[in-house]
Amino acid sequence: MNMKRGFYIGRFQPYHNGHQSVLEHIAGEVDEIIIGVGSAQLSHHPDNPFTAGERVLMITRSLSLLGCPFYVIPIEDIQRNALWAAHVRSMCPPFDTCYSSNPLVVRLFTEAGVDVQSPAMYEREILSGTEIRRRMLSGEPWENLVPPAVVQVLKEIDATGRMQQISRND
Amino acid sequence: MNMKRGFYIGRFQPYHNGHQSVLEHIAGEVDEIIIGVGSAQLSHHPDNPFTAGERVLMITRSLSLLGCPFYVIPIEDIQRNALWAAHVRSMCPPFDTCYSSNPLVVRLFTEAGVDVQSPAMYEREILSGTEIRRRMLSGEPWENLVPPAVVQVLKEIDATGRMQQISRND
Amino acid sequence: MNMKRGFYIGRFQPYHNGHQSVLEHIAGEVDEIIIGVGSAQLSHHPDNPFTAGERVLMITRSLSLLGCPFYVIPIEDIQRNALWAAHVRSMCPPFDTCYSSNPLVVRLFTEAGVDVQSPAMYEREILSGTEIRRRMLSGEPWENLVPPAVVQVLKEIDATGRMQQISRND
Amino acid sequence: MNMKRGFYIGRFQPYHNGHQSVLEHIAGEVDEIIIGVGSAQLSHHPDNPFTAGERVLMITRSLSLLGCPFYVIPIEDIQRNALWAAHVRSMCPPFDTCYSSNPLVVRLFTEAGVDVQSPAMYEREILSGTEIRRRMLSGEPWENLVPPAVVQVLKEIDATGRMQQISRND
Amino acid sequence: MNMKRGFYIGRFQPYHNGHQSVLEHIAGEVDEIIIGVGSAQLSHHPDNPFTAGERVLMITRSLSLLGCPFYVIPIEDIQRNALWAAHVRSMCPPFDTCYSSNPLVVRLFTEAGVDVQSPAMYEREILSGTEIRRRMLSGEPWENLVPPAVVQVLKEIDATGRMQQISRND
Amino acid sequence: MNMKRGFYIGRFQPYHNGHQSVLEHIAGEVDEIIIGVGSAQLSHHPDNPFTAGERVLMITRSLSLLGCPFYVIPIEDIQRNALWAAHVRSMCPPFDTCYSSNPLVVRLFTEAGVDVQSPAMYEREILSGTEIRRRMLSGEPWENLVPPAVVQVLKEIDATGRMQQISRND
Repeated sequence: MNMKRGFYIGRFQPYHNGHQSVLEHIAGEVDEIIIGVGSAQLSHHPDNPFTAGERVLMITRSLSLLGCPFYVIPIEDIQRNALWAAHVRSMCPPFDTCYSSNPLVVRLFTEAGVDVQSPAMYEREILSGTEIRRRMLSGEPWENLVPPAVVQVLKEIDATGRMQQISRND
Repeated sequence: MNMKRGFYIGRFQPYHNGHQSVLEHIAGEVDEIIIGVGSAQLSHHPDNPFTAGERVLMITRSLSLLGCPFYVIPIEDIQRNALWAAHVRSMCPPFDTCYSSNPLVVRLFTEAGVDVQSPAMYEREILSGTEIRRRMLSGEPWENLVPPAVVQVLKEIDATGRMQQISRND
Repeated sequence: MNMKRGFYIGRFQPYHNGHQSVLEHIAGEVDEIIIGVGSAQLSHHPDNPFTAGERVLMITRSLSLLGCPFYVIPIEDIQRNALWAAHVRSMCPPFDTCYSSNPLVVRLFTEAGVDVQSPAMYEREILSGTEIRRRMLSGEPWENLVPPAVVQVLKEIDATGRMQQISRND
Repeated sequence: MNMKRGFYIGRFQPYHNGHQSVLEHIAGEVDEIIIGVGSAQLSHHPDNPFTAGERVLMITRSLSLLGCPFYVIPIEDIQRNALWAAHVRSMCPPFDTCYSSNPLVVRLFTEAGVDVQSPAMYEREILSGTEIRRRMLSGEPWENLVPPAVVQVLKEIDATGRMQQISRND
Repeated sequence: MNMKRGFYIGRFQPYHNGHQSVLEHIAGEVDEIIIGVGSAQLSHHPDNPFTAGERVLMITRSLSLLGCPFYVIPIEDIQRNALWAAHVRSMCPPFDTCYSSNPLVVRLFTEAGVDVQSPAMYEREILSGTEIRRRMLSGEPWENLVPPAVVQVLKEIDATGRMQQISRND
Repeated sequence: MNMKRGFYIGRFQPYHNGHQSVLEHIAGEVDEIIIGVGSAQLSHHPDNPFTAGERVLMITRSLSLLGCPFYVIPIEDIQRNALWAAHVRSMCPPFDTCYSSNPLVVRLFTEAGVDVQSPAMYEREILSGTEIRRRMLSGEPWENLVPPAVVQVLKEIDATGRMQQISRND
């Protein structure tokens, strides 16, 4: 296979500008991108409010102008780190390189013999899902931290309503 | 949401011309198609030889000229029919209509309040994964039953070699 | 604890007169009966058409005049025979005796140190869920094989409609 | 079905007077009550000391004079919020209304199209399993916070002995 | 690591002379042997009557004079072929070579980059667990097909009693 | 069975001198020792860095001079305390006595009818996996807290490298 594919994974709770800029960078280096949506089975939890399907939608719409073909693949947790790389590979088209700065992801793919790239720029992301979820809960502005398509998806599903409801104390 | 999305599911072991013609038909009726790759966790078995990732690749390449945006989503089994419709919906962008002639799929989505379409034409598919796998095992021609892109993927992964090896008696 | 409790398990797909007569017999021997609804997670399958909740309803209504207090407890499969007796006991109030003529149930409870009773009469049940499901599918009369309350529940949920739909060939 | 059924869920570690008063209130509004025993698979843990079967026993005995028919159904966790409402419904007889003030339960049933009631009174429960377990561990009086039948069950199973043993540091 | 380890897997229901002769052969080629006890979670079933622990005992006692250090490791099924080789490796000390004539095992380890040996002699085993179980059920002699230590273990656990009981029709 | 077997369980992350001295003590009291490697499915996590196979290797090499036959058995978690004792017993050869000072282990085996011994000396272990992992991460000396064979195994697998990598913040 002569096509070069890159793999990128996140939980995307929600997908934000940091993810977008990393993917735009990867788009310049590979022929196709595979985006794994991690912890796909989780939703309706303060730290993981959105379903895999909602996250697939945010990502796909935000990348409509990427100019590089991509796959968006929900990846359920398997709760066994030693099997995780094999699990990811079974769910995705074959890929050559994993792009990640997450130390565990780097370790597991390296042990599995996959080439891993974690250039300095990925380290610099000050954007985080945690911060965006905090702002959504507290009513502070968050819309400028995510692509416009994500704002639209989150409004369609009344994301702040869901988050505020499930974060309330019993 | 004003966009109309249709859902179609199969195991795609392998993806074949019957699936392709159904999807071309659905493409004329909806704005976006979601293709669920069922039993995603299975592979390397005589009845389920290909990984979810390999099936995603077959489908995506075959639909490159479809002219209708689509999502290809691996769906792992949950072994509980009463939860299956909710499981599928959690993994997929929201959809309005399920296109299926599988009686269980029809039943489960209908009970879940999803509109299901199963027009006569889907019934008529004489093509089947079972027949294609039989031909691959016995060395009979099968290439004319699948889209050209599937032939290419199956050759790249030495599909007949794998199938013949795992189907041998111990 | 001076109270004597008896345990009885089945899949109850559906609950029928054979089950009813066994339970009426047990009612004469114990202070309270625990009825385990096995394979609770299964439904919408030709051999296991009804949900645990539907089966709980059939049983509870049929026993309204039993004159012996009873518990109806869904028991999900755990796929490990060596753990099954411990699993059942964790889900049920403490019991002294298991009433069963199923050889595996007898074996597993005996190994777990539970007293098991399987008097000849339980052997003689000619009634079976298999036969009742066959009749429901083929349109033959089945109503006389189950308690009247079960007829009512199965009509409320359109049981024959569901069974005929999910048993159809794809 | 003309019968109105209400659903109420808790972990009941242990069942206490707050649960009892809520159920007595619900008894005045419905024909039958379904009581779901959540996290049914957990036991022998400081936060979840009692088995599902022990909790079924506490509840059933405490409600012997309720004057409203009820079902007590163990519900195992499925670790997927998006499927939880379907899971509960598959294990229970059909119900119309869920009574809950737990924000996540409210959200998940509302999304599943179930009517949810959470009147002010449920909010006011100052009783909590956490407080009762703390008292049982520290040797403070707790018996007045639970129905008399629960005191009896907890004594029969030597609940404080178990809790003190499993809460000790290694 | 300079030590050469060989891996051999079976279900060992029960362990028999065919397994023994293969292991004696492998003992001449490696420094240490790892014996994986497959489908470790299964027992008390006609095709899988013995627990993992019972199988560990049969194997360990039979190999007491092997003259080559060995490990006996229960391996639970994970129901995902694409992850199986990684699963086995996570449960075992590192090994260089898998000895197997099972086509699926050969395939999965080969894809995982493990050296696999399946010399002609392994093919020739006429002994089989199926045949031994058949004889145990029917009361025909089976003792000469297994090592003496296995005869002893099977007597200690009343293996024929268990098998005959669980194989009886309901 | 006249042979007396003792069971001992730990997570062994890593195996250390405290475990070794307990096992040397048990060796004087029984004919054979079974060592259960708990949470066998976990690895590559700051609290559980090593695979079951790596832990089996550490233990086996450290006990080469024990002078008492022993079994080393990976035990995967089942997340249900009420079933845990039955789970352990299904994976191990039959045993008479469990040696443990872990309160939950003591409780679960006692409830399952197994004799449990927890002599004062096991209480006194000041050695702990937590402390050793802390030292490995911070670069402080830890080698004197584990048997020499463990030092060797941990070097072969570059344990400190792995631990430092997976413990880094994202």
